[in-house]
Formats: sequence, structure tokens, C-alpha cells
Amino acid sequence: MKVLITGIDGYSGWPLALDLLSRGHEVSGLDNFVTRKRVKEVGGDSALPIAPFPKRLAAVRQLMGKEIRFHKGDVTSWSFVHDVLAEERPDAVVHLAEQRSAPYSMIDVHHAVRTQVENLSGTLHLLYAMKELTPDAHLVKMGTMGEYGTPNIDIAEGFFEIDYQGRHDRVPFPRQAGSWYHWSKVHDSGNVMFATRIWQLRSTDVMQGVLYGTRTPQITDRRLFTRFDFDEVWGTALNRFVVEAILGLPITPYGKGEQKRGFIALEDSMQSLRLALEHPPAPGEYRVFNQFDAAYSVNELAELVRAVAEKRGLHPTIEHTPNPRTEAEQHYYNPIHEHLPRLGYQRQRTLEAVIEEIFDDLTKYRRRLEAHRGSVMPGGVNWRHGDNREGISARSHPAPAPASTEATPASTDRTPAT
Amino acid sequence: MKVLITGIDGYSGWPLALDLLSRGHEVSGLDNFVTRKRVKEVGGDSALPIAPFPKRLAAVRQLMGKEIRFHKGDVTSWSFVHDVLAEERPDAVVHLAEQRSAPYSMIDVHHAVRTQVENLSGTLHLLYAMKELTPDAHLVKMGTMGEYGTPNIDIAEGFFEIDYQGRHDRVPFPRQAGSWYHWSKVHDSGNVMFATRIWQLRSTDVMQGVLYGTRTPQITDRRLFTRFDFDEVWGTALNRFVVEAILGLPITPYGKGEQKRGFIALEDSMQSLRLALEHPPAPGEYRVFNQFDAAYSVNELAELVRAVAEKRGLHPTIEHTPNPRTEAEQHYYNPIHEHLPRLGYQRQRTLEAVIEEIFDDLTKYRRRLEAHRGSVMPGGVNWRHGDNREGISARSHPAPAPASTEATPASTDRTPAT
Repeated sequence: MKVLITGIDGYSGWPLALDLLSRGHEVSGLDNFVTRKRVKEVGGDSALPIAPFPKRLAAVRQLMGKEIRFHKGDVTSWSFVHDVLAEERPDAVVHLAEQRSAPYSMIDVHHAVRTQVENLSGTLHLLYAMKELTPDAHLVKMGTMGEYGTPNIDIAEGFFEIDYQGRHDRVPFPRQAGSWYHWSKVHDSGNVMFATRIWQLRSTDVMQGVLYGTRTPQITDRRLFTRFDFDEVWGTALNRFVVEAILGLPITPYGKGEQKRGFIALEDSMQSLRLALEHPPAPGEYRVFNQFDAAYSVNELAELVRAVAEKRGLHPTIEHTPNPRTEAEQHYYNPIHEHLPRLGYQRQRTLEAVIEEIFDDLTKYRRRLEAHRGSVMPGGVNWRHGDNREGISARSHPAPAPASTEATPASTDRTPAT
Repeated sequence: MKVLITGIDGYSGWPLALDLLSRGHEVSGLDNFVTRKRVKEVGGDSALPIAPFPKRLAAVRQLMGKEIRFHKGDVTSWSFVHDVLAEERPDAVVHLAEQRSAPYSMIDVHHAVRTQVENLSGTLHLLYAMKELTPDAHLVKMGTMGEYGTPNIDIAEGFFEIDYQGRHDRVPFPRQAGSWYHWSKVHDSGNVMFATRIWQLRSTDVMQGVLYGTRTPQITDRRLFTRFDFDEVWGTALNRFVVEAILGLPITPYGKGEQKRGFIALEDSMQSLRLALEHPPAPGEYRVFNQFDAAYSVNELAELVRAVAEKRGLHPTIEHTPNPRTEAEQHYYNPIHEHLPRLGYQRQRTLEAVIEEIFDDLTKYRRRLEAHRGSVMPGGVNWRHGDNREGISARSHPAPAPASTEATPASTDRTPAT
């Protein structure tokens, strides 16, 4: 199968390329490399060193004997998207080329607008290009479990059957997202559903849980590493917790820490995407996958990280910090996930084992973590503020301690525990 | 009350300004005049002649003894929105400055992207500016009943209480829009709901039915006319039908004609918006109004227009044309509308009486209708096509008859019945 991966340089785009190549599929990709820049904008960097893209391609050639056709450019350009599709004529497109950070989207009005404009226009360009050039190809679109929010009822898989005032229908499950980024994915879902219906496309909309892990079976060499972000803006809570433990900082759950989310290992996400690709929907079918294995609360993540850290002679404390987000901190959470198991999906990795692996990998790069120690601390982006540029600027250009204490009061209550 | 109207030059923005002024409110407004241009882009024009904006202001000064503070500019510019809010500090903002045509959004990829990017970024800019400058002001945001689509259950007013798998919650009513324009309003609704929650704003999201009519009580002089579009892209089905009847063309419902929509008279929409403004929601409250009076099918509209035409000695036929949209042509339709009546709303105008009035007004401008006769014919924008530029170009630059027959086959089956 010929698969085009948009965002092939990203955290899951890169291992997906390796996975598909190893299974004999033909892979092409595009990227604008903007995540590499934007992580630095907020004072972060990948914990694992990632090779420049041409070196990645060379490593694939050398280690796997495979070629990836690559196109540098931006999906917000219609002519770029059109030209790549015209040249590649893929059987499937996995669309990962979107701004993916909730805190980044909440920095200020410009980051909010940029996130939604980039994500929506990129997806619209792809839909139109597929309609024109590859109407029978399958679009696998990356969304997020965060589209649903945390309703007090079970979360259906995209659609649900309901009775209301004596009548019955199957309708989209209501979306109640929690950041401009998450809303951009909700908006995309509506657009993909609509295009699929009017143009009889084939699409799978992936409501993915939070990813975790540094490895997939194909990452056999450091030249093949995928990125791993741990700063407050681009890293997940789990990633931050591991780095905090390694650096001797307290582990810092937001608020009460009873917020629950669905999680899936990077390797199992690759399995899911592969299953989606190998079992395309019918023409005109818009299909939704709730792609996660298990739900964990932030407190459970913190405890798991502390337990692994203890075994390694580290003794992090857990210190709850004021929640910069506006989210329910105690809530019901029971999303249904049946579609992937029906295609043969079986979980391969446990959270505990992967946390061990993350500790193994990151400990080797402790100096990289130290260099970006400031970026892991919470408090830079607060959902209640319209403008967080000051907090971000303190993060990316750390001032000497006394001066920064005045400039960014939010960070003063987190003295490192070293 | 100080009210800022964005899109004050538009079909409902202008009469709203007159209405609020006549009731003693202070009115300011902004507009970029782009609708005037875009209607001409597709070969259309307002049926009633509308004065250039400075002449509108002069007429208001002379006839009503009132001033409107006006700002020319575009809500897609953050600095413009910010500056206007900083200067005006309104108690309420009525946000009407959005691309409002479904067919326009379906012309091609560029019109699709432009519609969503303009509408979303404008609304985001307003939300951020209100958060910063007027956090206690009330946002009245124009949406559309079309956000809901046509589900097989009653359509709740924004939110509904449901039982699902043994649990209960109040959640947003699912949205299933039918064009990129309608989806842009769905996306806006999500964004307004979220901003209201995180920043404790006050907002009313108006799911408005299709508007009809040329008049409100304040339009006492032709210098105060509001625009009235009848071309296939910018006009409503009802507007097209009246113009077809006046021009001796057949009335052309799309498809079976059993599509039902909610409708409200222009004058009653003004009443609704006034009630919303005079009864603002609490801080943090996101309120949804289903703003319409009654539902009619396209066939019912066609029959009503024909009946009025017959009384005037016109004898239009009704000729169903292939439906260029992808929509259910026979469906259940029962939207609930209780919020406005609870605030005292009472319907003032019947559809029949307003159709008579439209005939009266438009007949005086028959030559303007003749001049844009080509624009009323259906077939220029087809939802199933990714690229409708050819159909639109034929509309805006009508070629001599034999040549155009070949170039745009879709229009050949509609020979005028004159």
C-alpha cells in the first residue's frame, strides 16, 4: 500500500513511517519542521536527540534498505498539498500535520488563531485534494479523545443511538473540548464527516488517547530516535513527571489530580493506525475510533512514576500545584472502545513497563534534561489568562533568580527540591 | 445601553442599528463592506438599491436625529478589533460580521477555507478583546438553525438532558451542518461556549432561522433600505422564488422540495435580538436561542409565493430542479424554541403578509431584477463538485446564449418561461 504521512517528522509520524516500511508498505511524507522550532520558542527541546531529517532518511536507507519520498512544505498551502497528492497518488493518507499542543494554543490570541487556522485549513486542503486526485484513497485523520471532554455519561465511539422525547436517532456524540487546540480537532472532525458524506470519501477519525513511550520495535538505533518532549507546553503530564523525578524535582500534578484521561503506548498506537490502514472503510463511510487502552488519573500517573523512580534510588515527592487549566478535577470517565478490538487490536505494552523504558532512555541524556530544567515547571500558560506571553518568555529566556521572581510570581512557589 | 454591531452594513446589521437607535440605545458599528463586493463577484446585486454607507449615516442623522459611530475594517485583524473595543467599550456586542452564504462557501477550496478562516478568526479576536477590555459585556453571536441539520429527534435549544446506558447528563445538542459555511458557525459555537466558560464571559448564541422580508418599522425612506439578495449564491430560496415570479420565470425548488427549515421575519429577528440584549445572561453563562417562528418546506414556500403572485396577475409555474446540495429531501423537523417566548417574545409578522410586502417593494425595482436575471437561476454551485468556478464564472459574465449552453450544461434545462 502507498501511504502518505503528513507530519512525518513528528513524534508519531516518524515511528509510523518506520513501522509501515518494516511491513512492506511504500511510504512518502511531508513536514514543515515547525514543531522543532516551536518547542524551542517556549524554552524546551526533545529529551532524546533527534537527527536532522536528511540524516533520518540516510539511516533508514542504511539500516532498513528502504526509501522514503519526502516533500518539505506546509499543508496551509493549497498548491503544496495539491502537488504532493498529484505526485504521490497514495492509497491512504495519515494526517498528522497539525499543531498538537493544548498549552501552545492557549498562550495568547495569536497562538489560538494560528492553531485553529492552521489545523482547519490543512485538513480542508487535504480533503479537497483527495476529492480531486485520489477520491478512493483512505484518510486516517488524527484527532484526540480530548474532543469529548468529560461528560457524566459513557463516551460513545463517535456516534451514539439515543431516545429523546419519544423518538430515536443515531447522532454524533457531543463534543466539549478543553482548549483551542482540542476544539480545532473537534472542528476538523465536523469537516471530515461532512466532506466524507458529500464526496463519498473514505475516512477514519482517530480519537487518540494520550501517547506515552520513547520506543517502537523499529527504533533500533539512536539515529532513528523519535522526539520526546517534556516541557510544560509540548510535553504530556507523564513525560514531565519522569523528567521531574530524574532531575530531583517534585512531581507536580495539576490541582486535585483526579482528572482522568485515556492512554495508549506509542507502539500500540502504531498497531492501531496500521489496522485502520489495512481495513479501510467503504466509500462514503466516516468512521471514528476511540484509540486508547486504559484510563488513568493524573494522581495514578504520579504514583506510578514515583514507584519506578523509587526502584532506581530516586525519591521524588509529589506536590500538587494550582491547576493552570479550567477542567473538572473529579469526574466520571468511561469511554467505549470497541472498533479497534473488532479489527484484531491487542494491547502489547503496559504503562509500567513503558515508564521503565522511558527512565532507561532519558537517564542517558540527563544533561539535555538539565539544560532545559526551567521548561518543565508548571505555571507558564494559564487558561484563565488571555495573554500568557510573559510566563512563556520567562520560560524561554530564564532571568537570574531574584529578577525572575518578581517578573513571574507563578513560578516562585516551585523551588526545586534539589 | 452601548451596543457595538459588527457587520452593521449587512442585511440584518443595518436594521438592527435603526431599531436600537429608535429605542434610545447608543449604537456603534464596524464593517469591511465585503458583502457588497462578493455579491457582485457572482453576478448578483441587492434588489433594493442601498445607499453607500456615509449616505446611510447622513440619512440617520437627518431622519432620526441620531449618530452612529462607525469603524471601517476587518475583524480578521486583531489590532482592528482590539482598537475598536478599546475605543467603544460597549455593554454588548452583536457579532454579525461573518461570511453568511452557504453556496459561496461551496464554490471551491479557496472559498471554503476563506469562509472558515474568516469566521473563526473574527470570532476568536472578538472573544479575546472582550476578555481583555470588556469582560462584563454581553456577546450576542449570530449562528444558524442550520448548525443542527435535520436529525430524526426534536432539536433542543442548544443543550439537552439525556439518559445513556443508565447515566444522565446535560450535553450540547449534536451538530450536523450542511455546508462549510454552516460548519463555520458550528465551530464558532464551540469556541464561544469554551471562552464563556474559561473566562466567565456572558454570551447568547443565536441559532437563527432563515430571515425574510425587506422592511422593519424604522425603514421609512429609501435611503434607509437594507440590502435584499436574490441571486443563487446570496439569496434565500424565498427571495429567489419571488424574483422568479416577478420576472416571469418558473419558481424552482431544489429536488423534492420537502426540505423543511425554520423561518423568522426580519422585523421579528430585530425583536429577538433586542430581547436578548435587554436580558443579558449571567457571567459564565453560555445561552442558546433557537430564533425562528415556524418551519416551512421549500414546497410550501413555493406555493405561498405562487398564491401571492396569482393575486397580482402573475402565473408562475413551479418546476423542480436537480438539487445542487446534498441534503435530506424528506425528513422529520421539530426544533424547540422556548427561550425567547419566556423573555416576552411575540411574533409580529406572518409569512404571507411579508411576502406581499416583498412583492410590493421589488416590483418597483423590476429593472434591477432584470439586469441580474441570470444570477437567480439555480445550478451554479453544486455541493458534489469540488470546483464550481466555471458555473460561477458563467453566472457573473453571462456569455451569448449558444456559447454558454455548451460551457455550462447545468443551466440549459432552465429556459426562461417568458
